[in-house]
Order: sequence, then structure tokens, then C-alpha cells
Amino acid sequence: MSRARIAGTGMTPFGEHPDRPGRDLFGEAGLAALDDAGLSPDDVDEVFYGNFVGTLSENQGHQGPLMSEAFGTTAPARRIEGACASSGLAIRDAVRVVRNGEADVVLAGGMERMTNMGTAGATAGLAVAADDLYEVRPGVTFPAAYALMARAYFERYGGDETDLAHVAVKNHENALANDHAHLQTEITVDDVAEAPAVADPLGLYDACPISDGASAVVVTTDTYAEDHGLDAPVAITGSGQGSDRMALQDRESYAKTPATRAAAQEAYADADVVPDDVDVAEVHDCFTIAEVLALEALDLYEEGEAIGAARRGETTRDGRLPVNLSGGLKAKGHPVGATGTAQVAAVATLLSGSHPRADALDSPTVGVAQNAGGTVASATVHVLEVVQ
Amino acid sequence: MSRARIAGTGMTPFGEHPDRPGRDLFGEAGLAALDDAGLSPDDVDEVFYGNFVGTLSENQGHQGPLMSEAFGTTAPARRIEGACASSGLAIRDAVRVVRNGEADVVLAGGMERMTNMGTAGATAGLAVAADDLYEVRPGVTFPAAYALMARAYFERYGGDETDLAHVAVKNHENALANDHAHLQTEITVDDVAEAPAVADPLGLYDACPISDGASAVVVTTDTYAEDHGLDAPVAITGSGQGSDRMALQDRESYAKTPATRAAAQEAYADADVVPDDVDVAEVHDCFTIAEVLALEALDLYEEGEAIGAARRGETTRDGRLPVNLSGGLKAKGHPVGATGTAQVAAVATLLSGSHPRADALDSPTVGVAQNAGGTVASATVHVLEVVQ
Repeated sequence: MSRARIAGTGMTPFGEHPDRPGRDLFGEAGLAALDDAGLSPDDVDEVFYGNFVGTLSENQGHQGPLMSEAFGTTAPARRIEGACASSGLAIRDAVRVVRNGEADVVLAGGMERMTNMGTAGATAGLAVAADDLYEVRPGVTFPAAYALMARAYFERYGGDETDLAHVAVKNHENALANDHAHLQTEITVDDVAEAPAVADPLGLYDACPISDGASAVVVTTDTYAEDHGLDAPVAITGSGQGSDRMALQDRESYAKTPATRAAAQEAYADADVVPDDVDVAEVHDCFTIAEVLALEALDLYEEGEAIGAARRGETTRDGRLPVNLSGGLKAKGHPVGATGTAQVAAVATLLSGSHPRADALDSPTVGVAQNAGGTVASATVHVLEVVQ
Repeated sequence: MSRARIAGTGMTPFGEHPDRPGRDLFGEAGLAALDDAGLSPDDVDEVFYGNFVGTLSENQGHQGPLMSEAFGTTAPARRIEGACASSGLAIRDAVRVVRNGEADVVLAGGMERMTNMGTAGATAGLAVAADDLYEVRPGVTFPAAYALMARAYFERYGGDETDLAHVAVKNHENALANDHAHLQTEITVDDVAEAPAVADPLGLYDACPISDGASAVVVTTDTYAEDHGLDAPVAITGSGQGSDRMALQDRESYAKTPATRAAAQEAYADADVVPDDVDVAEVHDCFTIAEVLALEALDLYEEGEAIGAARRGETTRDGRLPVNLSGGLKAKGHPVGATGTAQVAAVATLLSGSHPRADALDSPTVGVAQNAGGTVASATVHVLEVVQ
């Protein structure tokens, strides 16, 4: 079995691109990734593409072939949809086919355009990631669902809004160096406390923005990378996926995310690493509490311990385990279908040294990327390692 | 590498189920497939699920985990969307992971509910499978697109509406024995000729109906099937996928479908069979002309030769190469996301002898299933063989 090597990464700036069709955004990211890899569109054997609500936001289903076309090929292409985990699943596909010798060069990526939908449209669009019959119709929006998770966490383990504010402050600070981030604004704990409430205990700064954008990663084999002299210093050595009951009320606890735990266990075993090996992590912080839940499900913290991690300075960029150095969904932005590949691209460039925040790390060797859909009814975890 | 064996198949009746949520339809098909396999939900390692427009028809994205839950598990699940080829892609995923030892038991399937959308809603829903900017907005609906393809075919190769009428008559006749078919009505060539025009040269009987329904196939390894004493007499020995430019006007010819040709060549090579080996085929006859184009792209007929196949009695159930013995999309129905798996289920049961039309075949050994999205911008082809 070959290793899956990352040969190139590309992304559009994340932010507001209401007038750019999805194909245009993905074309830019795909070509940037190929350019970074030193490859051309004709080198691509297969395309795995994540998108969540293009059917709603631009009346466009069947985006697979359109996205292949957008960067200039008719390579076999498919769309994968797992809500906010859509392109985490695309990466998983890419890793599998490359490892198994079914393709030499694969482009995995994702795109979302939502700011063209308006606030009400985007809220309704995001809601299709929840259980329509048993969550959406009774009135549970995503901020409300994550607020319930935060409240359940506080009740079970302790912690408070100020702990979460430190997560927001940290991720905003990290994004200051990232030219592709949606929000490049420094905030303070007081700003977070004084911001309008969204769903108690979560306020405006506990939530990621609605973003547009695209990301792409070129994945290849050891042999292809070596034969073609590609600069591909990072491999994806572990992949895992987990699912859970869709509706929060059907789960054992609101304060745990077993889908991430299952994905992490599979990915660690696949890579033959343990959580202690991890030097850097990008996790799915759609809301600040989600970062806390992810760090515990990834077994990077014991249950009940991650809530204070940012406040204690452990996950800040000068901490022992920097988390979301890219700015995370919170500040880098969250173009839903593009998030999973953007996370993998961030970890890859942090490990290779080309990310603007790479200087926070001292010879890192292992990174992890966790992507989640809905209230973590879907999760993917990927382990990345510097090729020795 | 293990072979991918089909251990069970299941489907709901195809037809009008406007009041049954998608989860309910897929739960029925999934449980039927598991029951047919003699397995339980807990035996399933991973779920690959095809759906096209659930986001529009029931405000439900993120259906992967919901569908796993629908048949009683939290097995990792994903949704794949390739328009009408969604579950052909799901089957391809299932074959890959089983062959590569990444899972022992996989459920591949699909679901669509569209009759609840009304006629205008269903037409708008189907349109998202075409290029929104360059086909849909200028006014090209799918009947119009396939009418252009039919007209181009007639001009290039000859043939006429009566040739197509024989395709419709054949597939309606085949469906008479299929209790799960949407349309169980015998029609004549005169009925087709006298039916209202839809888009010249295509009339009402040249088009498949709008259907609701679900289908599922349990795929496993040789070893698992043998160790667990499963009755799994058919293997999927070849898988192929092709993509093409999305909009018709960007292609070299309206009278050819190179995405199917590419998928077929890959699948035949994968299975190490040649077109002459094929004993039975289920092809994507969303319109009658599509069956003709598929048979040529599958290399079962030379270009320009398949138009007369049904009229000459070659693809009828007493012919040398029976095509769409299930009734095809034309009469069995076309719940979009469910079609690809339903085709594979039909070929599997035709080869194993348990299909109601299996008596049309004399000791068949090789079958093929071709699934297409849009105007064949996406295509999958699978080769099935009786296990020796």
C-alpha cells in the first residue's frame, strides 16, 4: 500500500464572494493547488468534491463534472455531501483511492457560496444539516443546538462563557497572519462578553461567520511524487470517519461527540500514532464550544479538561499544543463544503513550514485535522505526518 | 484483493409515496437488503448512500447519518450526489472499500422522493442536474435536451420515432412481471405515436415517470460470504466512472455519450471481460433515446446500430441481448437517487435467477449496469458475474 502524499494545496480567500459562481471559486482553488504541486489539470485522475447547499444557493446540483471542467479537465468527478464535513469526506476518498493504487493523482476539495442567500436564506440553508422532522420544525437552529451543548457541558464538567471567550480571542489572533482568512480582526475577552447574545450562553463572537470560498488539495502516491520530483513533504497517514444519531435528543449526552471519537480512534490506529504524538491540530470550531468538544473527543484532553485549554494558554500559538493556527472556522471562516480540505491544507503547510503561522511550531512531525457535520452527526479525522 | 460479492438486495415499490419521508423509504429498502443477505444492521461497517434533491424535496441535507439510523445503526455513512447517477457512484464506493479490505460488509443504496414536489417543483428539481448558467436559464429542460440528442442521432445515423417507440413498448412489457415497478401498463407502438408530444421528437411514452422509492445492495467480501455461509452467487467484478462537459453545447457531438464509453472501458478492463461476453444489461433509459445511446457507448452495438435493436427484437426479452428486463427507468420508474443501486440489484437477481424476468435468460454469466447523470455528464458502469 502506498502512502498518500500531499503534493499541493490551494484556496481562494475565504470571505464574501456573492457574485462569483461556485465553479469560478473552485476553479481558482483547484488551479492554485495544481500550480503548487507543479502539475497540470491533465495529470488529475479523479476529483472528489465536497459541497453542502449548492442546490439551494445557486440552483446547481450535479456539481462534480462541472468542477472538473472548472479547472480544465473531464476527469471523473463526484460530489460528496456530509453537511459541514463534506470535504473531510472528500479527503478520505482521495486517501483511499491513492493508497489502493486506483489513482496516481487525485484532487480533493470543496466549495460553498452562501452570502448570496441573504441571512434568512443562509440560516434556512444551514438548517438542512439538522433533522428536519425532529429538530428544525420544532425550532432548533444550529446556534441553539450548540448552546444546548455548551450548557450541558458547563453543567457536567464546569467552565463558563469566559473560557469560551478565550477560544474566540485565540482564533481571531491566529487569523491575523492569514491573508486568506475571512475575519482579520483582533478581539478581546471583553469584546466577546459584550457582544450581542446569539443563543445563551453563546454570543456573536462564539460563532463562525457565513463565508464563501473554495479549497483544494492534490493527493498522490510516494512513487508518483518521487518519479516526478514533486515537493511533497507531508503524508496523510491516517483517516477515520464516524457517524452518530442525527438529532441531539437521541444521543446519550449533549456534552460529548462520539462520532469524532470514533473517527479519531480509527485515524490514530490507521496512522499508528497516539494522541500524545500530535504537535498541532485544526479542529471544527463552528462555535467556540465545538473546539472544546473536539479536543476531548480527539483524546488530546481528558473529558472536562479542554474547556480551560485556551484560557490557560495551552492551545494558543505559544502553547504546548497550538490549535487552529489558521484562525479556525471562527476567524478563517467557514465556507461549509470547503472547510475540511482547508483544514488539511492548513495542517500540511504548518508541518511543511510554509504556513504563515508555522513559526509557532518547533520541528513538528504530526498534525491532526477534525471536520464535523451538523451537531457532529458526521465527523472525519485525518492524521498528517512529515515524511521521514 | 478480494472480490466484491452481492449478499442481498432490497427495494421499496417504485411509484408515488409523497407522504413517506425519505428515511422511511430507505429504512425499508436497507432492512430488506439485510434480510435478503441474512445479516443484521450491526453487521454493516459503512454506508454509501445516493440522493439527488432531498435538500429541495424534504429540506433534508446531511442524509448519510440519518439513513444509517433509518435501518438501525450509527455505521459511518455518507451521501454521494451525481444527479441521476448518485447511487451508481455509491456502488462504486462500496466495491472499492470491500475489495481493498477496508470493510467487510457495506450497504450501498439510494433514495429519492419527488412526487411531493408537484410537477413544477419536480421539473425545477430535475433541472439542477443541468448547467444552471448555460442550459437552465436559457430554457433547456431535460426533455428538450434529450430531444436535441435524439434529433442529432437521427440526422447522423438515421432512425426515427417508431424505432424509439419499440424501446418504450419493450420496457413497459418487461415491467409487467415486476411487482415493484411504477408503471405496469402494456402499451403499443400506436399508443406511443399517439401520445402527447413532450419535446419533438419525444412524446409522453418516451419519458420515464417521476417516481419515489429506495433501493439497497449489501456488498461483502469472498471471505466474509464464505465464513458466514451467505448466499452470494454474484460478484461485481468491474467498476468504471466517466465524466463529461456539463452542457450539451460544449461537447463534440450530441449523438454520443463519451462518459459512458469511458466508464464502460474501465469496467470491462477491470472485470477482464469484453462486450461480447455480456448476456444481459440494465441501462439508463430516462428517455428512450438514452437506451440507444447507452448501448452504443457500452460497445454492445456499433455507433448507429442500436436505434433499431428493440424494433428488430434483439433487446426484447426473447432477443439475443435482453435490455432492461426490469422495465428500466421507463417503466420500473426512476426515483433518481435510487436508480443506480436498483439497476445493480436487477442485474444481480437476473444472474442469480431470482428476478421475475430471469426466465428470459439461458444460464447467463455476465451482466452490466449503466447509470447516468444529467445528459450523461456523469456515468458509472458495473460488470456483474456469476461466481464460478
